[in-house]
Amino acid sequence: MSDLTDRLAEGLPPGALAVDPDVTAAYRHDMADFCPAGTPAVVVFPETVEQVQHVLRTATALRVPVVPQGARTGLSGAANAVDGCIVLSMVKMNRILELDPVNRLAVVEPGVVNAELSRAAAASGLVYPPDPSSWESCTIGGNIGTGAGGLCCVKYGVTSEYVLGLDVVLADGRLLSTGRRTAKGVAGYDLTRLLVGSEGTLGVVVRAVLALRPAPAPQLALAAEFPSAAAAGAAVCEVMARGFTPSLMELMDAVSVRAVNDLGRMGLPESTQALLLVAFDGPDRAAELAAVGELCRAAGASEVVPAEDQAESELLLEARRQALPALDRLGTTMIDDVAVPRSRLAEMLDGVAAIAERHGLTIGVVSHAGDGNTHPIVIFDAADAEQSARAQRSFDEIMALGLELGGTITGEHGVGLLKREWLARELGPVAMDLQRQLKAVFDPLGILNPGKAI
Amino acid sequence: MSDLTDRLAEGLPPGALAVDPDVTAAYRHDMADFCPAGTPAVVVFPETVEQVQHVLRTATALRVPVVPQGARTGLSGAANAVDGCIVLSMVKMNRILELDPVNRLAVVEPGVVNAELSRAAAASGLVYPPDPSSWESCTIGGNIGTGAGGLCCVKYGVTSEYVLGLDVVLADGRLLSTGRRTAKGVAGYDLTRLLVGSEGTLGVVVRAVLALRPAPAPQLALAAEFPSAAAAGAAVCEVMARGFTPSLMELMDAVSVRAVNDLGRMGLPESTQALLLVAFDGPDRAAELAAVGELCRAAGASEVVPAEDQAESELLLEARRQALPALDRLGTTMIDDVAVPRSRLAEMLDGVAAIAERHGLTIGVVSHAGDGNTHPIVIFDAADAEQSARAQRSFDEIMALGLELGGTITGEHGVGLLKREWLARELGPVAMDLQRQLKAVFDPLGILNPGKAI
Repeated sequence: MSDLTDRLAEGLPPGALAVDPDVTAAYRHDMADFCPAGTPAVVVFPETVEQVQHVLRTATALRVPVVPQGARTGLSGAANAVDGCIVLSMVKMNRILELDPVNRLAVVEPGVVNAELSRAAAASGLVYPPDPSSWESCTIGGNIGTGAGGLCCVKYGVTSEYVLGLDVVLADGRLLSTGRRTAKGVAGYDLTRLLVGSEGTLGVVVRAVLALRPAPAPQLALAAEFPSAAAAGAAVCEVMARGFTPSLMELMDAVSVRAVNDLGRMGLPESTQALLLVAFDGPDRAAELAAVGELCRAAGASEVVPAEDQAESELLLEARRQALPALDRLGTTMIDDVAVPRSRLAEMLDGVAAIAERHGLTIGVVSHAGDGNTHPIVIFDAADAEQSARAQRSFDEIMALGLELGGTITGEHGVGLLKREWLARELGPVAMDLQRQLKAVFDPLGILNPGKAI
Repeated sequence: MSDLTDRLAEGLPPGALAVDPDVTAAYRHDMADFCPAGTPAVVVFPETVEQVQHVLRTATALRVPVVPQGARTGLSGAANAVDGCIVLSMVKMNRILELDPVNRLAVVEPGVVNAELSRAAAASGLVYPPDPSSWESCTIGGNIGTGAGGLCCVKYGVTSEYVLGLDVVLADGRLLSTGRRTAKGVAGYDLTRLLVGSEGTLGVVVRAVLALRPAPAPQLALAAEFPSAAAAGAAVCEVMARGFTPSLMELMDAVSVRAVNDLGRMGLPESTQALLLVAFDGPDRAAELAAVGELCRAAGASEVVPAEDQAESELLLEARRQALPALDRLGTTMIDDVAVPRSRLAEMLDGVAAIAERHGLTIGVVSHAGDGNTHPIVIFDAADAEQSARAQRSFDEIMALGLELGGTITGEHGVGLLKREWLARELGPVAMDLQRQLKAVFDPLGILNPGKAI
């Protein structure tokens, strides 16, 4: 045992620490391909706040980097190990400590799985809206680290809007409490929001106070087929300009529609250039759905299929759920995450199609259309170095296009390692300077998830 | 002219600078009584971002404090001058630069009056929800500085939830752009949220990208009279626990009901110990109102008066609008702003009544009951030093009670000068240490609104 593991073991129960390379290798990286991942010296599974404090104090004393991890479902490499680091896996701190329907909040440990919280909330007639597609395995701590989104955001917003307060262990082992349990509060600078989306570079979340909402009615959905991305984009704009707020508004391009068909389950029309899925969950959902169907037709939809009930709605939404697995079958994939103002969505989609054509690659796009948040998925043969280089260039050009259209390089996946070089292009030198100084305030030795985010 | 005014004048148009003591005296303080206010050396009225940058560069060069101001309707002294400072009045930067129904956002300068933005948004079928009671005069810049709330928050949240991005002039004159124009975005640390509520201590907001929402239906309201704060508090909890989300849920105590009656306009029943006002603005509002009426009766309401239409609703809500002016007539007032978890609202109200009795003072309480946000208004004779001291002690005891009940010393008014000593009690030493270091990152010379907030 090294000095590091000896010192760590002093404050940890047996079994909370793994050094076997076969074990630690499993904790090297998240689900982002093409991001470098180092080899951890040790993986620690703390079960208490005090154990996390002990780990951070030890790391500070020995100047060892610490990489916090949830379920490692992230898509930007933010949870990737660096050589010689302590991986701090938070998955055993997974208790729901409180669930309070009157104050509409939950207090949870970071290792709670998103879907477990959702199910526990549902049992009290409540909902925790953020629903990343990995929701059955991803953890709340990881969601907070990345600022995760999902399909719900057009109506319900992203993770950051549901984090009321945090307990965070700082780099030096001190315990910071931020935020509140009240519906409102403006005492002091908003450290809670600063920590959400900070990808473990400012501190380690050990407890979170989360806002819950009353569970809405089951969604009622329609599918509308459009002859072009422009027509679908115009429909999206029209829906929002007319004051509708769908609970879901997703767009699949021709590539993803064909991929889903090829999976052999959906029988979507091959002529579709863009398939728009819109759902409502409010008391007027049937009337809203009918009105939006009319708007889609007026915007040029060749067919509009409204669901009659929840079961039919689920069937329509299944096409969207199949899109990522269907595209994954076509080759190695790089998934991008560029958000633009929704008025620029059609330009974004046409621009991505042009990039695909220019580089001779297949790029499927699914988007959270109501948010203008696109996920272009670049498909290529990873064994072909030249094609891989073209894929990387396409990926970069997609981000450049997003910035050109007034957008952001990441709507919900985070910067991690994958987009670190791009962050400065989006933020500019003044913001980057402040971001680096803020990092230094929280982590003067630079031991917290070094090389990530900023 | 001093060196300061000479240097300022070099980069400002004629008339943008006032040094006449009769003029500058009008810019010494906001609407918080009992907060010290210094005498400014000069008041500047910039009209462009470049002029603001010039002022900050000059202030940095000469080490002169800068106090940003909006309409000075704040209630915590955050806009109060310090001796020899530059008051930076942002009221002439008051253009609405964009109003975009598709992307549901507005781009505004900080001097835009809240109600003007609301009216402009309404013309496009949109709404900017935050509605502090000073909305006809307060500015968006001031709202952002304090993190202002209002009556809408139980359903629509506070100012911070509507700020997507900011342009901010830093202490050294550099221009920082934060945030985004997209519905979502997680690139870098959230500097936008750090700046909202920072009371001008981190930078000067010169432009804001604000989220708008589709305008809801007109509110339908009911009034319910309760024999005790406990019964009213129980009704509030029941409404929220059953999954209702009113667009407004306000509570007036017996003192404020009597004060409104004494104003001679409302004829509210004198036996009422607590008057609860609840409104809905969704498609099911009539049914929701009827259901909440039943819940109120079950919780012990002696009378429930539902409005039949918008006009009747307005009449009911008028009682709430009259409460502050009515209490103001009774003497000098100190208005507090303590928020507690809504489940503790009744304890808070009973506690305030006990404090009033113990000190032999009148304290009226209006509260945003859905948020647990109480505004106890301590009434006293400012000419009576001993009574003034009791008022101050009551004010402090109310904050102590709020903290004891798991609440915050300020739900929406901010810390300013008024509650600065209390901030450390709420945040604790670790958070205070970080807050001070963050301040130093943005303002290393300490020239931005010194002595406020933290």
